[in-house]
Amino acid sequence: MADKSAVAADDKWQLAKGWRFSGEACGMRGDQGRRDMALFVSDAPANAAGVFTTNLVHAAPVKVSRAAIAEQGGRGFRGVVICSGNANACTGAQGMADAAAMRDLASQAAGTPQGSFLVASTGVIGRKLPMERVRSGIQAAGKTLAPSPDGLSHAAEAIMTTDTRIKVSTRRIDHPKGAITLTGVAKGAAMIGPNMATMLACVFTDAPATHEQLRPALKSAVDRSFHCVSVEGHTSTNDTVFVLANGLAWRPDAGHLDASALQAFNQALEEVCRDLARAIAEDAEGAGHLVVLEVKGAADEHSARTVAHRVAESALVKTAVHGADPNWGRIVSAAGYAGVKFHEEDVSLEVDGIPLFRNGEPVDFDAKAVSAHMRNNRRLTFSLTLGSGPGHCTFYTCDMTEEYIRLNSDYTT
Amino acid sequence: MADKSAVAADDKWQLAKGWRFSGEACGMRGDQGRRDMALFVSDAPANAAGVFTTNLVHAAPVKVSRAAIAEQGGRGFRGVVICSGNANACTGAQGMADAAAMRDLASQAAGTPQGSFLVASTGVIGRKLPMERVRSGIQAAGKTLAPSPDGLSHAAEAIMTTDTRIKVSTRRIDHPKGAITLTGVAKGAAMIGPNMATMLACVFTDAPATHEQLRPALKSAVDRSFHCVSVEGHTSTNDTVFVLANGLAWRPDAGHLDASALQAFNQALEEVCRDLARAIAEDAEGAGHLVVLEVKGAADEHSARTVAHRVAESALVKTAVHGADPNWGRIVSAAGYAGVKFHEEDVSLEVDGIPLFRNGEPVDFDAKAVSAHMRNNRRLTFSLTLGSGPGHCTFYTCDMTEEYIRLNSDYTT
Repeated sequence: MADKSAVAADDKWQLAKGWRFSGEACGMRGDQGRRDMALFVSDAPANAAGVFTTNLVHAAPVKVSRAAIAEQGGRGFRGVVICSGNANACTGAQGMADAAAMRDLASQAAGTPQGSFLVASTGVIGRKLPMERVRSGIQAAGKTLAPSPDGLSHAAEAIMTTDTRIKVSTRRIDHPKGAITLTGVAKGAAMIGPNMATMLACVFTDAPATHEQLRPALKSAVDRSFHCVSVEGHTSTNDTVFVLANGLAWRPDAGHLDASALQAFNQALEEVCRDLARAIAEDAEGAGHLVVLEVKGAADEHSARTVAHRVAESALVKTAVHGADPNWGRIVSAAGYAGVKFHEEDVSLEVDGIPLFRNGEPVDFDAKAVSAHMRNNRRLTFSLTLGSGPGHCTFYTCDMTEEYIRLNSDYTT
Repeated sequence: MADKSAVAADDKWQLAKGWRFSGEACGMRGDQGRRDMALFVSDAPANAAGVFTTNLVHAAPVKVSRAAIAEQGGRGFRGVVICSGNANACTGAQGMADAAAMRDLASQAAGTPQGSFLVASTGVIGRKLPMERVRSGIQAAGKTLAPSPDGLSHAAEAIMTTDTRIKVSTRRIDHPKGAITLTGVAKGAAMIGPNMATMLACVFTDAPATHEQLRPALKSAVDRSFHCVSVEGHTSTNDTVFVLANGLAWRPDAGHLDASALQAFNQALEEVCRDLARAIAEDAEGAGHLVVLEVKGAADEHSARTVAHRVAESALVKTAVHGADPNWGRIVSAAGYAGVKFHEEDVSLEVDGIPLFRNGEPVDFDAKAVSAHMRNNRRLTFSLTLGSGPGHCTFYTCDMTEEYIRLNSDYTT
């Protein structure tokens, strides 16, 4: 069970207008009483966009939600239903029928039109959804929907698998036509047992944003947040990010976001996604350090991200951080095989401002002192300069520990 | 120190004609008396080809050897000199001068023309080569060159870093014009401390093969051997594979390899390289299992290798094997994000012939029995079918253990 303090509602959260939340327990997981069914419901039809796993093997709810957004042109959604404990992946035709049924049960429970829900799942793969439990969970959740921090915390808890705390981030944007609020929740990439490392995130907003505005905004925000997190480099079958906008922040005749309001919205969406992404890296299973990788001076942002990704996925880099070793060699050489061109003599590396490598050669630093610094700081920022280009990126990962190995291998015994 | 029995010469080794070997200690590493300087010398000029690290950050000896092969058109080489303990990487202009000096010292010690040696190094990066030790080591090795299994075992030992045993593989091909012999040595991708995971391999042969025959033969053999091994997915700054052919198997007027002899040679070269590659995976640090991944039914060989590589690099797959968990989900989903197209419903997976997943859905296997099988067998073969295409590949990796983490993080403390 998660620590109670880690799932408490926070009065400082900003709740988007016209959104209600709930999370109930239906026994999908072994641990009795654990919330595992979440509903997120809007009072008015919302526009929606989604970013889904790029894994060729993707779960039934991913297929169902992606098709729904495409078929409805990203319009007319009233909510999202998410269960944790069963991913409904690798479940064949029955899985597709179950995902659609889960979506329709949510519409019924919320009293909204058929087909107005999006659906996501996380948990064990290869097992059929226990539909009787799904039904009772959704019905229970339908009765406790509330536009409150408590409702939100229950929903955020219900989507957790092995996360140790709920992940919520909100933003409010002032605007003459009415403040716009974004309320985001996520669950982490941590995994255990036969569960996959599924990352789920939803942002609920009252912004009067069209589907055409939401789609590029979400893609860009995800590229700079969830795509800049690597816990173990495994893209799951169920990864899903949704944004739903019901427009209730402004009066119905106030129109959609104009260019300047859209810019502010995009910025806030990116911030919410970055908060949630960082929280996922910080809560990774068995991790001892949060590692922030800043890559600078690349030819473009994509090159910077490619290099950061390679470094973040290196087991040698992650074990060196665990051992508090300022091992510039592992970082520089991981950058070297990322497939991005740079000149060795332009490369420099610092950890928390301490130079380790400069212009292609190691710096004569005090290894003992730097190691002590690394051991004593749970959050470490490595800054890697590749040249003088404009491309940069901030990437989050964690170290790799014996505890990680134990959690990921000993669960069967 | 390595176990004595692990470095003993084997009388069954086939030694290529006209090749002499030696390995001596020059104190490059901390452990006194450990062999760390190897010479491989041919009685006649040899044609050569090399495959080098694709890491953008590559060591001085890589630059020197690559340039030498290009400048000389792959002709006129008399040997290879390799030191272990210092990689001569990230060492700037001084490192280039030192690598060239090491090569020239080897020519002098062997009494061969200037510029007739190739050079490689493995070990700590970012430190200048201790040239006085290099000089004395090469001089000592020059005096003990021998066309014998003992000479070969000394040389094979001298290139080891954290390997626990020497890696030698040889083949003999019968031919009416004279038997052709290939004698291969390698050191592993295992790493520790600030050393990089350098993989070095050399094949010495008496085949009358031209540079133009050796180049594609080596590329193809490496693609099917060393490129099918992943211990931790880190491409080092120093990875190098050489093949040198001095032609002494046949009389000088017998010409070069004809088509059928070349085919036999290519096959033998691939076999030697595969033996050495498998030995590297088996000897990986902290590994409990050798994992053989057979990918079948892909569109082509490249697709099969790409999928195998992704699965082999997955920390989730490697920890599941360590935990003796027949976790088909981690393997199938790692295949799914390799970027290779296949249909989920065509995918099947077996471990040592036991079906785990068939046509896109999990098989109802006896998890306890399969887990016991996995625990009790140090070598496990996973067979992954992606469809009905002709592309297949056999890939070697190992599991990921607490011991691996300890070796790769605790060395500084």
